[in-house]
Amino acid sequence: MPESVPRATISRLPRYLRALEGIGGSDSVSSEELAEAAYTNAAIVRRDLSLLGFSGVRGVGYDVGRLRAHIRTELGITADVRVGIAGAGNLGRALANYGGFGRRGFRVVALYDIDPEKVGGEVGGVPVRHLDRLAGDGRSGEIDIGIVATPGAVAQEVAESFAAAGVRSILNFAPTRLQVSEGVEVRQVDLATELQILSYYRSHAEA
Amino acid sequence: MPESVPRATISRLPRYLRALEGIGGSDSVSSEELAEAAYTNAAIVRRDLSLLGFSGVRGVGYDVGRLRAHIRTELGITADVRVGIAGAGNLGRALANYGGFGRRGFRVVALYDIDPEKVGGEVGGVPVRHLDRLAGDGRSGEIDIGIVATPGAVAQEVAESFAAAGVRSILNFAPTRLQVSEGVEVRQVDLATELQILSYYRSHAEA
Repeated sequence: MPESVPRATISRLPRYLRALEGIGGSDSVSSEELAEAAYTNAAIVRRDLSLLGFSGVRGVGYDVGRLRAHIRTELGITADVRVGIAGAGNLGRALANYGGFGRRGFRVVALYDIDPEKVGGEVGGVPVRHLDRLAGDGRSGEIDIGIVATPGAVAQEVAESFAAAGVRSILNFAPTRLQVSEGVEVRQVDLATELQILSYYRSHAEA
Repeated sequence: MPESVPRATISRLPRYLRALEGIGGSDSVSSEELAEAAYTNAAIVRRDLSLLGFSGVRGVGYDVGRLRAHIRTELGITADVRVGIAGAGNLGRALANYGGFGRRGFRVVALYDIDPEKVGGEVGGVPVRHLDRLAGDGRSGEIDIGIVATPGAVAQEVAESFAAAGVRSILNFAPTRLQVSEGVEVRQVDLATELQILSYYRSHAEA
């Protein structure tokens, strides 16, 4: 795993990209505008983009179209990235239907579950397959990223199935810390994070 | 809205807290350990905690229990924070069932929907009420934070209902940018963010 670009910089790239996607007719954007969208400051934006080898024009800013393309390339989302979701419960179904994925270059290819009432059906056009098929689909290269959307009790087992099937990028929504073998990248989504941040502003506004 | 603590610092507090909650028997934690959990570096951890008025002991680190309590107080989650969720579709239901909220001091008090087949029912013990009741519940002080988990097309309208009912903290899961009046804090959750970060590591590992 190359580590030359700091993890903190990489974690800001999706926010820069979202800001750039929201810019309409404008041709250029300032580091201040990007900073506001990414909850950071302009100096950090300039350093981040220079770490990616992208530079702006003094007094003008960054070219919106070129920067957008540059960040998409960095993020590896120029072509379709195929996503498999383990768990066809409420969360898995919500993710399969989530409008924000397709627009960003992520295509959900299948949901996996063990419930016979769900297997064989579909959710928003995405087929629900038996969890037993995950291994074959992974090995045949159908899954670039695996999402764990199962109950916490089986999350570890499902993550190991993804890893065994050659899926080396896992996004975990279950509130469980996963142990995976070296070479597998796991990101943990904690849906309470943003509630905690809102709570900060709420309690300080009242104080 | 007080702005003395930088937004970037505040956005790291939930990660520090999660790391502190995961520490078992240990009495102290180093800035390096906290940095790793928050995808940042030790110098930033030390600066963040000093901005909160919390200091460690040189060569020993930070007291785990005291720091945990300090961050919880900063985040305003010492007592129950009551959450109302608009939208009882897959996402709203998944959030109402999400194990990570209760453990962090967030209590979902109601889901709101207009579907007559859902209204009057419950999800994991949380009642589903008609959207018409949101205004009254907000004004009587039952909702501290409102979550928008509706389709994008009605997200703006629902956010305005929360704001009109006096709910000044809104978490938006719909892939739509919300316009709210001054004094209302909105955080946007973009479920594609973490996929984009994973995609970065995936494409750079293969390169």
